[in-house]
Amino acid sequence: MTEHAYIEDIAAHEGKGVTLKGWLYNKTDKGKLQFLLVRDGTGIIQAVVFEDDVSPEGFEAARAVTQESSLIVTGTVRADKRAPGGYELTANAVEIVQLAEDYPITPKEHGVEFLMDRRHLWLRSSRQHAILRVRAEVVRAIRDWLDSHGFINLDTPILTPSSCEDTTTLFETDYFGERAYLAQSGQLYNEAEIMSFGKVYCFGPTFRAEKSKTRRHLLEFWMVEPEMAWADLDECMRVEEELVSYVVQTTLKNRAEELKTLERDTTLLEKVNPPFPRLTYDSAVEILHREGVSIEWGDDLGAPHEVVLAEHFEKPVFVHHYPTQCKAFYMEFDPERPEVCLSVDLLATEGYGEIIGGGQRSASYEYLEQQVEQLGISRQAYEWYLDLRRYGSVPHSGFGLGLERTVAWICGVKHIRETIPFPRLLGRMYP
Amino acid sequence: MTEHAYIEDIAAHEGKGVTLKGWLYNKTDKGKLQFLLVRDGTGIIQAVVFEDDVSPEGFEAARAVTQESSLIVTGTVRADKRAPGGYELTANAVEIVQLAEDYPITPKEHGVEFLMDRRHLWLRSSRQHAILRVRAEVVRAIRDWLDSHGFINLDTPILTPSSCEDTTTLFETDYFGERAYLAQSGQLYNEAEIMSFGKVYCFGPTFRAEKSKTRRHLLEFWMVEPEMAWADLDECMRVEEELVSYVVQTTLKNRAEELKTLERDTTLLEKVNPPFPRLTYDSAVEILHREGVSIEWGDDLGAPHEVVLAEHFEKPVFVHHYPTQCKAFYMEFDPERPEVCLSVDLLATEGYGEIIGGGQRSASYEYLEQQVEQLGISRQAYEWYLDLRRYGSVPHSGFGLGLERTVAWICGVKHIRETIPFPRLLGRMYP
Repeated sequence: MTEHAYIEDIAAHEGKGVTLKGWLYNKTDKGKLQFLLVRDGTGIIQAVVFEDDVSPEGFEAARAVTQESSLIVTGTVRADKRAPGGYELTANAVEIVQLAEDYPITPKEHGVEFLMDRRHLWLRSSRQHAILRVRAEVVRAIRDWLDSHGFINLDTPILTPSSCEDTTTLFETDYFGERAYLAQSGQLYNEAEIMSFGKVYCFGPTFRAEKSKTRRHLLEFWMVEPEMAWADLDECMRVEEELVSYVVQTTLKNRAEELKTLERDTTLLEKVNPPFPRLTYDSAVEILHREGVSIEWGDDLGAPHEVVLAEHFEKPVFVHHYPTQCKAFYMEFDPERPEVCLSVDLLATEGYGEIIGGGQRSASYEYLEQQVEQLGISRQAYEWYLDLRRYGSVPHSGFGLGLERTVAWICGVKHIRETIPFPRLLGRMYP
Repeated sequence: MTEHAYIEDIAAHEGKGVTLKGWLYNKTDKGKLQFLLVRDGTGIIQAVVFEDDVSPEGFEAARAVTQESSLIVTGTVRADKRAPGGYELTANAVEIVQLAEDYPITPKEHGVEFLMDRRHLWLRSSRQHAILRVRAEVVRAIRDWLDSHGFINLDTPILTPSSCEDTTTLFETDYFGERAYLAQSGQLYNEAEIMSFGKVYCFGPTFRAEKSKTRRHLLEFWMVEPEMAWADLDECMRVEEELVSYVVQTTLKNRAEELKTLERDTTLLEKVNPPFPRLTYDSAVEILHREGVSIEWGDDLGAPHEVVLAEHFEKPVFVHHYPTQCKAFYMEFDPERPEVCLSVDLLATEGYGEIIGGGQRSASYEYLEQQVEQLGISRQAYEWYLDLRRYGSVPHSGFGLGLERTVAWICGVKHIRETIPFPRLLGRMYP
């Protein structure tokens, strides 16, 4: 048998014989000529099967093969300007490995629940394939940038004795008699690690048991959380805009084909380069009032506010110095104006809303001790966290970037459920 | 203030003024001369503070600074052959950022439980720092190799309706009225994904609620699981030996300093290159019998067997064709000898035991349907998995490599608890 080749490398085999192993994506029957669209995960190519070129069994296979059957096709690679990828295969052998009968997802329109029930098969459609290739590229770009900028990747625990955020949205499990919760963030652990490593990041699954069904929420999603010793709010924003710009530009370059498949208008994405506009929370409220949007100073910004704000900018926009009361207990407050804190959210363009939350953490033992007491959170569970301010406390900052929201934004997909292979949603844990 | 520099880049600043931001690792008081060992996460350097070179406040700071206090030191970089990194700093300013009082981990010996209770601080010791730098390097090397060999990184779900392995070792949680379990593997999901992407891998946390306390078990650990369409057992072993060799050689090259800190004898690691020796299960049992180790044909190999077998080889060794009865329900059996299956484990050298388990998965709908029925596992929960054999089934293989075991082996550390920032063990969820 000739060499097994991948479709993405097909140009290197022009004029030569290759064996392709894949699945039938589609076909056209022209009697003595069978046109088989074959996909192998790396690309799609048309195999032209002429009755006289193959054995009777091979031609019968080409005639009989059905959508999503697995098959092996051997033939010669020919350049063809009219072909989608610029090449096609003149087949001299066709073998069906397993004949698929009545594949349920056909070229006709299907409802979302029908497709979600068949997510394990829906993944094969060109649109889902493209979105998840973009996802993998985004993951790689994030890691490449952080790895090459002095950040050490360390994994923080999922099973934790308590949470740093709202305890009503926690998944709980029994840990040999103790109660454990699935982590919503690795940040507090990152804060311990930076005292040893300087700059770190964790990148793993996070969990929110939120009883809400929106196009922006998953119960299980992935988040990258960089944390930096000796960095203030300003440095935090600089790192965020550099990272996000690198990720967007790298994806535009390496996943141009996929973004074309998704019919993504990349005009605004091409402009994603530092610096990003910076807006104080105060100015954000002013803009919203001018636009007639109802908000009171002190309220957190919700998705509708974020959409209105983002419309004023052609790039992602930072909103910083939120009211201290609407951010987490560990945020550093502004020493000149304690009612606001050194927090920052990054809002994506085109209505995609918040993709990053972060800011400068309090370095003060006294302030955090008081916060833990006032909030009535377990002193004992946070003793180790307070230790970080007892032994070599430093100013430090960090942030969390939501992977699925970022992928949805770059791909231009409306609902976050398509940006992860097997989404976990309210009422949906299968497949 | 002069430029903030990192200690790992110090050579580039020779003869120039820099500002270092870090923590006091150790110091020597010689009256008018204070020798401060400063670490910043990227390295350690000695700052020499001479009373006449700094302000009175600066000298008082140098005199007063305690172990693990955070500090900022400004000075001039000087080459010095006697210094550990080849450079030292002649200080002209010293500022304490936060004075640590009574740092609990001192250079004297501490018990393991004492250190584990203070894991958030223990991370700062040079040994823990080195192990976790190696861990980050191993993660990066694994991802680099897979990304550059056509594998697409896709994240599989943690919250799953049922498990593919023993259900007695599952962490359980309430998923809005349904029972959900924390995944022990992403493999079954990977098998769906390869039908769309060809080659994929997941790399995330996995959970085993095992009531065992050994030096090789964590309740929460990280695993990378590559899966390949069209790959047989032989190809699976080829990929494993190439990946493992790349990871070991890359780590030896990029983390030589850290391995020296750990006093790792790297003689055997240097020999880790393809091909690895391959041993059938039958031959393994013969060797064990010859060595007088008790085992019956059909038993799975345990840690003591693995240690004895590995001693016969200077490289990691494959054991393949295990009895079908001791491997998972989805393993492909050998068509010529159904009592053995196309599975393979990889045993590390020097007694570190199994670091990879994997093999070829059954492609047969009929066989898997029968397996699901015989094992009494939920047909409904596995319907989607059976679909993969209904629609374009292909021969395929894959494996799971345990990150912490691999790091323990490369670092030469005895207990796996030191290979993850915040280990989760029986009776241990803090900090």
